[in-house]
Amino acid sequence: MSTPPYELIYAPFAPGRGEHIRLLLEEAGVTYTDTTSLGWDAALAANQELLKGRDGNPPYFAPPLFRHGDLIISQTSNILMYLGSKLGLAGSTAEDAFRVNALACTALDGLSDEVHATHHPISGTLYYEDQKDESTRASKVWINVRLPKFLAYWESVLASKGGPWLMGETFTYADIVLSQCIDGVKYAFPKAMAHLDEKSEYRRVFGHWEQVRARPRIAKYLASDKRQKYDNGIYRYCPDGDVVPETAAASV
Amino acid sequence: MSTPPYELIYAPFAPGRGEHIRLLLEEAGVTYTDTTSLGWDAALAANQELLKGRDGNPPYFAPPLFRHGDLIISQTSNILMYLGSKLGLAGSTAEDAFRVNALACTALDGLSDEVHATHHPISGTLYYEDQKDESTRASKVWINVRLPKFLAYWESVLASKGGPWLMGETFTYADIVLSQCIDGVKYAFPKAMAHLDEKSEYRRVFGHWEQVRARPRIAKYLASDKRQKYDNGIYRYCPDGDVVPETAAASV
Repeated sequence: MSTPPYELIYAPFAPGRGEHIRLLLEEAGVTYTDTTSLGWDAALAANQELLKGRDGNPPYFAPPLFRHGDLIISQTSNILMYLGSKLGLAGSTAEDAFRVNALACTALDGLSDEVHATHHPISGTLYYEDQKDESTRASKVWINVRLPKFLAYWESVLASKGGPWLMGETFTYADIVLSQCIDGVKYAFPKAMAHLDEKSEYRRVFGHWEQVRARPRIAKYLASDKRQKYDNGIYRYCPDGDVVPETAAASV
Repeated sequence: MSTPPYELIYAPFAPGRGEHIRLLLEEAGVTYTDTTSLGWDAALAANQELLKGRDGNPPYFAPPLFRHGDLIISQTSNILMYLGSKLGLAGSTAEDAFRVNALACTALDGLSDEVHATHHPISGTLYYEDQKDESTRASKVWINVRLPKFLAYWESVLASKGGPWLMGETFTYADIVLSQCIDGVKYAFPKAMAHLDEKSEYRRVFGHWEQVRARPRIAKYLASDKRQKYDNGIYRYCPDGDVVPETAAASV
């Protein structure tokens, strides 16, 4: 029996949630297909088809989807855990896989979902323009209260094991997820992040972001045409909400 | 070596995210400890202590936490997946565990996190009273646009395998999560949910909610003192935002 292909089913519009999965596959050095390369219409059709549930798989609510042989699954953290365990990027032991998943879920919750929510505070189903004032308010609170808290938390994780990676000496997909999230937050809130990057208290987190991006296979991918631009995806740049954190500034 | 105990580390204030874990443990019929029973101060101290990371575990960001021997993990979906696989509630095959996790994550995203966000649209760090108008607006959009979409999705999952459970004939912890989420949404939006319950198009979802609650061990737990009341947790009742869905009403 031949090895089934790794198939990412996602739409082309921004790196999005699918990017964590792409980066994991690139780091592992395996061949995979990505419906993103088919263009919008074909990618959307593939998504709609697989969301219905087939071959013994339940219907799923939203992309990204992933197919590997007969298995079709959804949910970013779930796909990452499946691939991470299969491709040797989920830590050294079976128990580590759950520590790594906890870290990945925490990065996605705080530095991806919460950031997206600052741009769509009333509802993800309404246009940004219909909730612009609320978004500006939400962004300012997030930058002042949540962002420093998250950076301090990740700094503590990197410090606790002595680095260079979140799980110590073993590189895992949680490193990929954190680095990609930091990258997105830098795009969405450049002023806030530049200010925080200048301070030494988060040097491990910003250093980690660079170290992950410098890994040979990831660096090659990031420099390629396959890496999409941020635009109207999870991470959006809205100048009105991008402020220098007050608390952090006061503590200098 | 004796079997290590199952230890839930959470605080007493509402069923909360920890409830999914309690219900899984009750259904499995295993003995477990729950810091909730220690009262607020002791529970909080236990949380703070374990969040720091120890015994080779990384620091974690927020409860619920779970300890099983040397392993300490966070993140509700992650704890459920760990316990579900160990206690025979994650489906029939290793691959099913990822289908079940996808379903559980989708229920938690849509019917727990999104509901909590309608009460704290600007920020989870601000009081409800400081974002009351925004919350009312967010709740109305959610009830009209998102809630019917989620109910239709879960109806399709239950229909696709012929029931009685999400994975067909095999009961899994995804059933527990969906039922507990529906229970919470019924508390938060009683008027909206009563209206939707009267319609036949979601009969599988509402029937499923009852069937899970009627399982002997779960029914016994729900009738006990251990089951906490909803109050200021994820699910809050705010009358201003609880409306009869317009779209659904129009389609009758």
